[in-house]
Amino acid sequence: GHTRVDHHRSLRSGLPEVIYAAGKSTQQVLEIFRALAVSGVDVLATRVAAEAAAAILAEHPSAQHHELALTVSLRRSETARRGHIAVVCAGTSDLPVAEEAAVTAETFGAEVTRLYDVGVAGVHRLLAVREQLDAADVVIVCAGMEGALPSVVGGLVGVPVIAVPTSVGYGASFGGVTALLGMLNSCSPNVTVVNIDNGFGAAYTATMIARAGER
Amino acid sequence: GHTRVDHHRSLRSGLPEVIYAAGKSTQQVLEIFRALAVSGVDVLATRVAAEAAAAILAEHPSAQHHELALTVSLRRSETARRGHIAVVCAGTSDLPVAEEAAVTAETFGAEVTRLYDVGVAGVHRLLAVREQLDAADVVIVCAGMEGALPSVVGGLVGVPVIAVPTSVGYGASFGGVTALLGMLNSCSPNVTVVNIDNGFGAAYTATMIARAGER
Amino acid sequence: GHTRVDHHRSLRSGLPEVIYAAGKSTQQVLEIFRALAVSGVDVLATRVAAEAAAAILAEHPSAQHHELALTVSLRRSETARRGHIAVVCAGTSDLPVAEEAAVTAETFGAEVTRLYDVGVAGVHRLLAVREQLDAADVVIVCAGMEGALPSVVGGLVGVPVIAVPTSVGYGASFGGVTALLGMLNSCSPNVTVVNIDNGFGAAYTATMIARAGER
Amino acid sequence: GHTRVDHHRSLRSGLPEVIYAAGKSTQQVLEIFRALAVSGVDVLATRVAAEAAAAILAEHPSAQHHELALTVSLRRSETARRGHIAVVCAGTSDLPVAEEAAVTAETFGAEVTRLYDVGVAGVHRLLAVREQLDAADVVIVCAGMEGALPSVVGGLVGVPVIAVPTSVGYGASFGGVTALLGMLNSCSPNVTVVNIDNGFGAAYTATMIARAGER
Amino acid sequence: GHTRVDHHRSLRSGLPEVIYAAGKSTQQVLEIFRALAVSGVDVLATRVAAEAAAAILAEHPSAQHHELALTVSLRRSETARRGHIAVVCAGTSDLPVAEEAAVTAETFGAEVTRLYDVGVAGVHRLLAVREQLDAADVVIVCAGMEGALPSVVGGLVGVPVIAVPTSVGYGASFGGVTALLGMLNSCSPNVTVVNIDNGFGAAYTATMIARAGER
Amino acid sequence: GHTRVDHHRSLRSGLPEVIYAAGKSTQQVLEIFRALAVSGVDVLATRVAAEAAAAILAEHPSAQHHELALTVSLRRSETARRGHIAVVCAGTSDLPVAEEAAVTAETFGAEVTRLYDVGVAGVHRLLAVREQLDAADVVIVCAGMEGALPSVVGGLVGVPVIAVPTSVGYGASFGGVTALLGMLNSCSPNVTVVNIDNGFGAAYTATMIARAGER
Amino acid sequence: GHTRVDHHRSLRSGLPEVIYAAGKSTQQVLEIFRALAVSGVDVLATRVAAEAAAAILAEHPSAQHHELALTVSLRRSETARRGHIAVVCAGTSDLPVAEEAAVTAETFGAEVTRLYDVGVAGVHRLLAVREQLDAADVVIVCAGMEGALPSVVGGLVGVPVIAVPTSVGYGASFGGVTALLGMLNSCSPNVTVVNIDNGFGAAYTATMIARAGER
Amino acid sequence: GHTRVDHHRSLRSGLPEVIYAAGKSTQQVLEIFRALAVSGVDVLATRVAAEAAAAILAEHPSAQHHELALTVSLRRSETARRGHIAVVCAGTSDLPVAEEAAVTAETFGAEVTRLYDVGVAGVHRLLAVREQLDAADVVIVCAGMEGALPSVVGGLVGVPVIAVPTSVGYGASFGGVTALLGMLNSCSPNVTVVNIDNGFGAAYTATMIARAGER
Ligand SMILES: Nc1ncnc2c1ncn2[C@@H]1O[C@H](COP(=O)(O)O)[C@@H](O)[C@H]1O
Ligand SMILES: Nc1ncnc2c1ncn2[C@@H]1O[C@H](COP(=O)(O)O)[C@@H](O)[C@H]1O
Ligand SMILES: Nc1ncnc2c1ncn2[C@@H]1O[C@H](COP(=O)(O)O)[C@@H](O)[C@H]1O
Ligand SMILES: Nc1ncnc2c1ncn2[C@@H]1O[C@H](COP(=O)(O)O)[C@@H](O)[C@H]1O
Ligand SMILES: [Mg+2]
Ligand SMILES: [Mg+2]
Ligand SMILES: [Mg+2]
Ligand SMILES: [Mg+2]
Ligand SMILES: [Mg+2]
Ligand SMILES: [Mg+2]
Ligand SMILES: [Mg+2]
Ligand SMILES: [Mg+2]
Repeated sequence: GHTRVDHHRSLRSGLPEVIYAAGKSTQQVLEIFRALAVSGVDVLATRVAAEAAAAILAEHPSAQHHELALTVSLRRSETARRGHIAVVCAGTSDLPVAEEAAVTAETFGAEVTRLYDVGVAGVHRLLAVREQLDAADVVIVCAGMEGALPSVVGGLVGVPVIAVPTSVGYGASFGGVTALLGMLNSCSPNVTVVNIDNGFGAAYTATMIARAGER
Repeated sequence: GHTRVDHHRSLRSGLPEVIYAAGKSTQQVLEIFRALAVSGVDVLATRVAAEAAAAILAEHPSAQHHELALTVSLRRSETARRGHIAVVCAGTSDLPVAEEAAVTAETFGAEVTRLYDVGVAGVHRLLAVREQLDAADVVIVCAGMEGALPSVVGGLVGVPVIAVPTSVGYGASFGGVTALLGMLNSCSPNVTVVNIDNGFGAAYTATMIARAGER
Repeated sequence: GHTRVDHHRSLRSGLPEVIYAAGKSTQQVLEIFRALAVSGVDVLATRVAAEAAAAILAEHPSAQHHELALTVSLRRSETARRGHIAVVCAGTSDLPVAEEAAVTAETFGAEVTRLYDVGVAGVHRLLAVREQLDAADVVIVCAGMEGALPSVVGGLVGVPVIAVPTSVGYGASFGGVTALLGMLNSCSPNVTVVNIDNGFGAAYTATMIARAGER
Repeated sequence: GHTRVDHHRSLRSGLPEVIYAAGKSTQQVLEIFRALAVSGVDVLATRVAAEAAAAILAEHPSAQHHELALTVSLRRSETARRGHIAVVCAGTSDLPVAEEAAVTAETFGAEVTRLYDVGVAGVHRLLAVREQLDAADVVIVCAGMEGALPSVVGGLVGVPVIAVPTSVGYGASFGGVTALLGMLNSCSPNVTVVNIDNGFGAAYTATMIARAGER
Repeated sequence: GHTRVDHHRSLRSGLPEVIYAAGKSTQQVLEIFRALAVSGVDVLATRVAAEAAAAILAEHPSAQHHELALTVSLRRSETARRGHIAVVCAGTSDLPVAEEAAVTAETFGAEVTRLYDVGVAGVHRLLAVREQLDAADVVIVCAGMEGALPSVVGGLVGVPVIAVPTSVGYGASFGGVTALLGMLNSCSPNVTVVNIDNGFGAAYTATMIARAGER
Repeated sequence: GHTRVDHHRSLRSGLPEVIYAAGKSTQQVLEIFRALAVSGVDVLATRVAAEAAAAILAEHPSAQHHELALTVSLRRSETARRGHIAVVCAGTSDLPVAEEAAVTAETFGAEVTRLYDVGVAGVHRLLAVREQLDAADVVIVCAGMEGALPSVVGGLVGVPVIAVPTSVGYGASFGGVTALLGMLNSCSPNVTVVNIDNGFGAAYTATMIARAGER
Repeated sequence: GHTRVDHHRSLRSGLPEVIYAAGKSTQQVLEIFRALAVSGVDVLATRVAAEAAAAILAEHPSAQHHELALTVSLRRSETARRGHIAVVCAGTSDLPVAEEAAVTAETFGAEVTRLYDVGVAGVHRLLAVREQLDAADVVIVCAGMEGALPSVVGGLVGVPVIAVPTSVGYGASFGGVTALLGMLNSCSPNVTVVNIDNGFGAAYTATMIARAGER
Repeated sequence: GHTRVDHHRSLRSGLPEVIYAAGKSTQQVLEIFRALAVSGVDVLATRVAAEAAAAILAEHPSAQHHELALTVSLRRSETARRGHIAVVCAGTSDLPVAEEAAVTAETFGAEVTRLYDVGVAGVHRLLAVREQLDAADVVIVCAGMEGALPSVVGGLVGVPVIAVPTSVGYGASFGGVTALLGMLNSCSPNVTVVNIDNGFGAAYTATMIARAGER
């Protein structure tokens, strides 16, 4: 086939192989998944459509499908969880991105705390979860519309915040661009940013940071 | 001269005549100011350069020059102040816009409370001034960079919030565009928005709202 | 479930709870509606698809469905209407947004006058409704394409104008962006702006203003 | 020198040769002007800096310098004026562009009526000059900020309107882009548009139209 | 119904009433068409879907449906054609816009010459139709992609050129924006521009110009 | 004065107070610097103009001025360095941003390795410093133009990469926007991004990460 | 029919006629293909939908359909291949564009080497194919997301590189715009760029270059 | 110093070393120039300010300064010229970019024909130089404003055309972006594009192509 898997990254980072399933046929996803599974490593597939997920599970019954996160993961290593990551968002619409981040981090071996009902327009809810925020080695914040949540969270915690703009909103939200720009201009200096809806990338880096914190 | 003053608006709204001095010569500003002053109404000039301000004050010693706000105002009416407006911003860089708003509102007869050292990355400062926010009939919030402050303020108060994006920031702040977009996507539904750096327009509308609250 | 309802806002502002139904499943909308209805407050849901609307009405026969506005509302309070709001637009295509604004304002207890067939290219039609404009405490103007209507209306009235850009038009209208930019640059200083197609937000703020005018 | 003058256009259109002086040295402008003047045709130079204008006038005492329009013109033909063009704008800041249009049209032999103090936020002023608008074969409308004036004028007249966006405004006016977009989306179908600040191009086309009207 | 027809424009310009059918239901289009037809004037509907066209023709058998142009027109006046308009484009993909322009102009009473197979990358084809171009009172040029055709045509003719950017192309053509920008920057000064795909607007203004040329 | 210093952040994060001197007068910068210095903490000022730097050094002789980085820092704590940060860039033009990052990280107590002459168009240079990259707990990569360097570096290392787009380039580099977009779309999942030219923010987060790695 | 085929280009360049099938009906594509085939020249059609491809093959059994490339080609000339072109991309998603380029170049008579599994985040894979790159007269590089591959390749080879941005990615990849901008800002001076997804154009120019290299 | 010169590229491509002097101090430029000159290779510096040019010439009397092109070149190799390049532009304003291209190509050893007074709005001038175009192995076309010239030239010649958008124009020319977009959408398939004002890059690639043609 056309795809030569890059085992170097996996070795280098100690993180599992990941398949980006968007725009691939069920057949293509299945083949890459199989090739990785055979080699015995942990496997994660993101942006997996329902049909492809079913096909993988039929072949790999021990794999786990997260419908909201659109992921399928296969975890063999039974090692203890290392590092704490808090995943924060404002509610219903940001959930798919937040779950992509949370499931990715869990598949990569981190302990994840979900804080999914806090928003900048009701700041008391955020203050109510402050203790849980303080327990994290790193915080992932997913937000659409004005994307202001990472700044407020960033001001409350003393650890890195990874901001994920989501394509939630309408009109001048421009599919997540407004949230992205807001996050890049955050007045909290502990905020760095990934691409719109890229829960996976946020979790990948967060896992690296959280592990270091556990060393 | 080329300028026919529109006295209709002044009559209609009960607000003073205003001169937008940017891009006008000292001579032009002086002539319009004189024409209005002669007619006995209150006069406000915004975006007034130092030279033009000096020229006006030489001719109208009772006029007031606010250097930070770049305004010159001439107030005759000795009526009591009507309506309370809070003007909120995060600090040093937003001050010129905030002051344009505050001075405009005062010239138009409103009571103004300045809350100038609050920001989203240190939300406890905002909570510390909550009582003062609650006393206002309408709140003007000026913010640059990610422009998140109006959303947080909007969630704390039960009155209209007028958001003024400022051209403060660098890089992806795009001269205030990021703040503008963030404010338009505010998740607080009591937020409406004016043009970048338009402290004047915010104060004009805020005065109308605050007066209604006093009726 | 995932959604913790924020009763604070409702208390703070004296306005009903609102559900934003876009991107929520029928089941999700129904559950939130039920939770709010049970607590006895007025309820409004916006951007409600036909199916979700039918489901709500089956359960809450006294609720009202506005098809054009895409809203479902449940009003219990029999208090007298407070404040006058005029909702202005140019015609057919802007109607859904104008109706979202009008129905929202009515659900929130305001008196609404609809002026739906006026446009800048036939200014005599606007002059013909001037008396009705003058009776309003605040005017909401919805316009797509070049978005020029709020400026003309703003010049005719002595009260705040809330401009709602609509995503009506083609080519260089860019889904409402041209109208939005036009409104932000309005030469009428009593104009403030909300997000594209955000009839709800305009009505929310307008209600607050109109109430103040009635106090 | 590097410049070969294209006498074809002049012959084809019956209009004078025009020099665009922006970005050319005084020496370059002078040489091209001289070359054209020698050949006996009418000559117009636009965007002429003060120094270059002085140099031309020293050499061609019968040439006319319009300081506001930044033009220098040399008219020999003593033919009667053909066609009526109205040039409309809202005031002070748009004057340089409006004057570039007016002087160009006059140099090209048209009769020009200047209507320079009308704006969309005070529509009664526009109605007051309606008779003068009705006398024109074509109307040029220059406007910055929201660029709404051409739509309103277009709805009042039964002739073509050429809209010239000006780079007047600040913040979200984006150097004339907002006005440009508004004009392209005009709901008056008799409006066509030229580049930002292109008073010259508007007058060039307007002269062609007005002449046809006089045939 | 909601639509009050504006007969003023029709009287003012001497041009027929026009219905913009995009985004209107078959029922709405039919009702407006009927209302205009009853009053005896010429009627034109643009952007008419197949279903709406069939409905109109069933009711008005003498109406004409142009499938490519997406128009339905009803012409009663048997007056001679006035004014010559050339409609130019590069081929297949631009045809719908070119035909909207051509049919509109014909419905409005102009003589139309179609020159539909010329492009800037094969300039000899354009030179081959030069005589036909020279016979026109005004030229409409429709072009997508780089939108360069109006400049070349503008350099060949001595009459106004109305440029219509089309949404033809892919990638960095941005739905017609690149063509639009190219046309606004045309180095031919007799070029003015309308909105993307706005064949109707181009023909409306062209008809006004061509009539003047025939007076 | 207007500035209330927020000691909370400093306490929370264990990092020194930082002054953003851009847009502040020499007097303002001096006053804030003095206030912080008096309280005994480490102090860092970024974007300090030559004049302001001289004024600070006159008052605080033990402070250090980095001319290229535009920083002034005052370090009292004599603690050992914690954590290793590599700062990577392609050369001359990116140096000011890279130095802002490097000096900030050093002031915050990290060990910094500068790798300043590597670029994507000469990939052998990057491979030549691979060992030094491997020694870092986190890598900061500053790049302008196409901003491709973080992706290549990200593929070589097994730790987080913080990408800083610089405003270096011309034409379609749009003041750093092209580099910013490239970095956000990095195919290396360990890359997160900060605002254009924000060397400070990158170093702030990098220090937090590197410290965790040392725990 | 409407389409006059331009045989001049074919003669001029010595390259076959090409049909751009996107947006054409099966019938239109078939007719143009037939007209060209009849005249005996080589024929290539790009962006051919499955249905149109089937129709062509039914009529021209010796034509070749490449499903991934979306092309149909008819090659008669049995001349030896002239010039070597390497086509490079990072994998699965860029394949359709890479194949459009490769098949076009082969139809035009060039020798093509496909290097389809190299990317900037795993630079060792690129170094592994260096010998094959060195054998090419010109290199076509297709890349989406950050579009960094052409810069790295450009630094490795001593021949022209033609960069093709692809519309692969999500969020801030903006349908290929980020890749396009990155390529235009390439720090390798031997890189030139074509439109997003324009594999055809890249191959057209590459063939011309490769032929020259073989002369 | 900070700059390690990359002699690999020079060896690889057989082209001289080039210094990009923009944003470097006179001292920096001088040092790099000296280092290269010492090694005996040909040297080219682009974007050289007057002061830096004078400094280089003082030290290297045999170097050549081209004022319009802003280049300084040192050519030792007395080899015969290889390959013919035509450099085409429309006139005065594009000259600096065209000259950067022409001088670069000459320094690199190519024969250059300058065709500097042709434009799309006077297509007869272009046809008049057709013979000279036909003699070239590759054509560089520099154009600002609508950037249409490369398409027309591309249709006339059978060799590659490299298009260089220039930052010439005003208003909606957006500093060369409109020209850039037009060129990327060229309907001539032999057109590839470089960054705005990048005469150097165009000449670098053109030289590679022209040499191949001479092999
Ligand atoms: N949701 C995601 N967003 C961005 N990148 C991803 C995502 N999921 C996986 N990836 C990256 O895509 C790579 C695999 O791409 P591919 O070879 O196309 O399957 C992985 O190594 C990840 O770095
Ligand atoms: N049409 C609308 N546009 C924007 N915001 C809305 C709209 N309808 C409701 N909202 C807001 O959405 C909030 C509820 O969001 P949710 O919790 O997602 O249902 C309400 O408190 C309103 O502020
Ligand atoms: N294709 C079109 N593009 C732009 N405007 C049009 C078009 N067709 C008709 N119109 C305009 O739309 C107006 C009618 O709009 P409506 O009342 O919504 O049917 C007419 O007066 C025309 O000015
Ligand atoms: N995939 C493609 N992308 C861009 N241009 C193409 C493509 N395929 C063919 N063309 C060009 O389109 C021209 C034919 O266009 P048409 O006459 O519409 O079929 C050919 O001469 C090619 O220059
Ligand atoms: Mg930051
Ligand atoms: Mg709002
Ligand atoms: Mg305003
Ligand atoms: Mg129009
Ligand atoms: Mg023009
Ligand atoms: Mg990432
Ligand atoms: Mg290049
Ligand atoms: Mg091409």
